[in-house]
Amino acid sequence: MRLLEERIRSDGIVREGGVLKVDSFLNHQMDVALFREMAREWKRLYAGCPVNKILTIEASGIGIACITAEEFGCPVVFAKKTETKNIAGDVYRTKVESFTHGKTYDVIVSRAFLGPQDKVLLIDDFLANGAALLGLIDLVRESGAELVGAGIAVEKAFQPGGDRVRAMGVRVESLARVSSMSVEHGVTFCP
Amino acid sequence: MRLLEERIRSDGIVREGGVLKVDSFLNHQMDVALFREMAREWKRLYAGCPVNKILTIEASGIGIACITAEEFGCPVVFAKKTETKNIAGDVYRTKVESFTHGKTYDVIVSRAFLGPQDKVLLIDDFLANGAALLGLIDLVRESGAELVGAGIAVEKAFQPGGDRVRAMGVRVESLARVSSMSVEHGVTFCP
Repeated sequence: MRLLEERIRSDGIVREGGVLKVDSFLNHQMDVALFREMAREWKRLYAGCPVNKILTIEASGIGIACITAEEFGCPVVFAKKTETKNIAGDVYRTKVESFTHGKTYDVIVSRAFLGPQDKVLLIDDFLANGAALLGLIDLVRESGAELVGAGIAVEKAFQPGGDRVRAMGVRVESLARVSSMSVEHGVTFCP
Repeated sequence: MRLLEERIRSDGIVREGGVLKVDSFLNHQMDVALFREMAREWKRLYAGCPVNKILTIEASGIGIACITAEEFGCPVVFAKKTETKNIAGDVYRTKVESFTHGKTYDVIVSRAFLGPQDKVLLIDDFLANGAALLGLIDLVRESGAELVGAGIAVEKAFQPGGDRVRAMGVRVESLARVSSMSVEHGVTFCP
């Protein structure tokens, strides 16, 4: 998606250690007009797919997911990260390793809000190693819902997450696919 | 706001210990069509106020804030909860005690995204003791931005947060103000 690629080129910042900072418009400050265009693009890509629920993971996926849900006319459910071992209530549960924060979270979704009647589109801001997305896929499978696919804002295509998820047969639509990046030369996108 | 009150009456669940669960539509599963109506109501209430930034706190405020930001034509910034003591970078910082989780978080906002040029509307899902809202007010004051007011979805008016914040001269527009609640009799709203 040219609009998002251009925005990454102009406002994204590459840091040492493979860090792409897009926090001026995507995941700390949030440009909701850009989110609306991204949402319309996912709606176009998934036209005809009977999505009735959007699943994301807190925190930075939530805003993008909510704007996207309006396009699909469905609710959002966000998976909650928790370090608590004993949560009361009836939840689906998986583990997600955060490379950014160097820890593993339990991630939960209430059984009340995801089940075999649901056709789920996953939405998240980033796909790199795939840990968060694989966790969400786990939760969907556990629930018996149908997985329609995933919508990702920025995929680091040089990391293994996207390949891994696609190899499982899951459709992944990333709006900007970064093929390489460096502090010196900035960001290059997949053609 | 009658629509939100009716939804709380029909789908909210009162639990022992003063807990009002609205997670089927507000803060786990999110009804974005309801959020749009709430956003329009805040836009009506704050008509003529020159809001150019919406500030919220992760996680459950983010969705409501993003939908609301579209009404105001401005970006969202969300304050991040962190237990990390040494965060690199230039941030405003305050402390917020979570009564729900029984711990105190450092809450941060990058200095790049909030400053004296900003006229800020705070958005959050709940106001009870006021801890989160007071934290956000702190961050706005530290930044030198102008605080226009706050938009709250559900205020527990029998807890001290709302009075405390209004006594500081901050305008607070809560769309549903719960005057009392009990497992036996459900929820009553302020007239």
